[in-house]
Amino acid sequence: MLAAVVNGSKVRDVQHAIALEDRGLAYGDGVFETMLLRQGQVRFVEDHLARLEFGCKRLGISAPSIDALKNDLQLIAGAQNDGVIKLIVTRGAGGRGYRASADLAPTRIAILYASIEPDAEDGIEVRWCATRLARNATLAGIKHLNRLEYVLAHNEWNDPKIAEGLLLDTENEVIEATTSNLFAVIDGVLTTPDLRFCGVRGVIRARILSLADRSNIESREGVIHQDEVLRASELFVTNAIRGIRPIRKLDRYQWRCGPTTKRLIDALAAER
Amino acid sequence: MLAAVVNGSKVRDVQHAIALEDRGLAYGDGVFETMLLRQGQVRFVEDHLARLEFGCKRLGISAPSIDALKNDLQLIAGAQNDGVIKLIVTRGAGGRGYRASADLAPTRIAILYASIEPDAEDGIEVRWCATRLARNATLAGIKHLNRLEYVLAHNEWNDPKIAEGLLLDTENEVIEATTSNLFAVIDGVLTTPDLRFCGVRGVIRARILSLADRSNIESREGVIHQDEVLRASELFVTNAIRGIRPIRKLDRYQWRCGPTTKRLIDALAAER
Repeated sequence: MLAAVVNGSKVRDVQHAIALEDRGLAYGDGVFETMLLRQGQVRFVEDHLARLEFGCKRLGISAPSIDALKNDLQLIAGAQNDGVIKLIVTRGAGGRGYRASADLAPTRIAILYASIEPDAEDGIEVRWCATRLARNATLAGIKHLNRLEYVLAHNEWNDPKIAEGLLLDTENEVIEATTSNLFAVIDGVLTTPDLRFCGVRGVIRARILSLADRSNIESREGVIHQDEVLRASELFVTNAIRGIRPIRKLDRYQWRCGPTTKRLIDALAAER
Repeated sequence: MLAAVVNGSKVRDVQHAIALEDRGLAYGDGVFETMLLRQGQVRFVEDHLARLEFGCKRLGISAPSIDALKNDLQLIAGAQNDGVIKLIVTRGAGGRGYRASADLAPTRIAILYASIEPDAEDGIEVRWCATRLARNATLAGIKHLNRLEYVLAHNEWNDPKIAEGLLLDTENEVIEATTSNLFAVIDGVLTTPDLRFCGVRGVIRARILSLADRSNIESREGVIHQDEVLRASELFVTNAIRGIRPIRKLDRYQWRCGPTTKRLIDALAAER
């Protein structure tokens, strides 16, 4: 961690920064964003803040103002040019019990981390996870703080060569990767799981779908099963920090970065 | 809140008590217990600590020693005779990312709250919740910190006359109440949902099943649907703070505290 801001103030003592009764800790009662700081700018900041606001609305949390959040981001980025910013908004600090007082002030937390190492040029190796995602349409899509399934999934392997785990839901649909969304070119169509019951609607995922539209790449959101992933002609995952990551290897199957993936990598790089 | 202890030390500043990167806050990566302090003793303390340890094991968290937890409880109870103690154990404070370092020290949090107001003698009024519980066998039963469904459910109503909400899962099975387990006498058999896919295996729930065995009350854990709840001859919920609470009213249906419920209330009072 390079720096942190809680409710608009720089944190001096990171070991004693959060209220004991914060509902983020008590119940995972909040949402978060992970953003790329690049050349002093938060990449796709409006998309991230819009998703954060949408998540708060879904959970009935009174979202902090966009101005307050942007101030936090400016304060945390400081003079830093590059890095990763995590922004957490919880319902606030309240007493015991699931019911939240109506007058809670949400907690805003911004943390700056150092930049990550880039991937190898030829893509990443992934695996299937045994941990399944539960289906709950109410929580589907938003980036809430109830992430135990992802913690368990990501702790299934230790091999640093494997970058991501692919996740199925309890009904054996392929949903996403542990920290990314999944795209597969299946029968010539760029396909991504529809996330109607679980998964996170990534900021880059939405950009890719919009870019595909604008680039006349046929795309669809739908149900994907394991065998369709295996027979896909191209396969990649996306997230806000690493953009598009072609999948090179999954078990004994191998892929190369294909033409659709290459076009989208270039198109995404040109987005503002 | 009357007092709090974090990792064995009394908390002086409750607004700045928890590490910024605690995984309990980041992901709901932990478990908790809510316990009754009565006449200076934590009621059913061994049951609670055993469930906490079981939950840690399920999540791959290295559980704190029972001695450390008992010291926390002693410190937090202090000279207090009665109250409610909440004990949280998280995987600890770590960096960014779902994968947990193997060397994390778990965070222990104990909070003391004042005693609650007793219920009316003739039982409680409950309602059905619209929020559904997702099915995930891996997380079922343990009292983990991913509690958004319960927060949303408990925020569905504001009427203080309604004490609890009854929860269905996404497949329309009746699972439990927002802060309690549910028991129904159906066709003469004491029945409680089996919680194989969701719900919390309550300490009092286990006691009731064991008491039923010892008292020759026929009981079963199984699937319960809404219509079976409505035609139950007796209906009650249980939790560690309030013990057995007979249900008096659910929508337009009414019940009286029946003979099986009465026997179990007496039997539970005699438990140690």
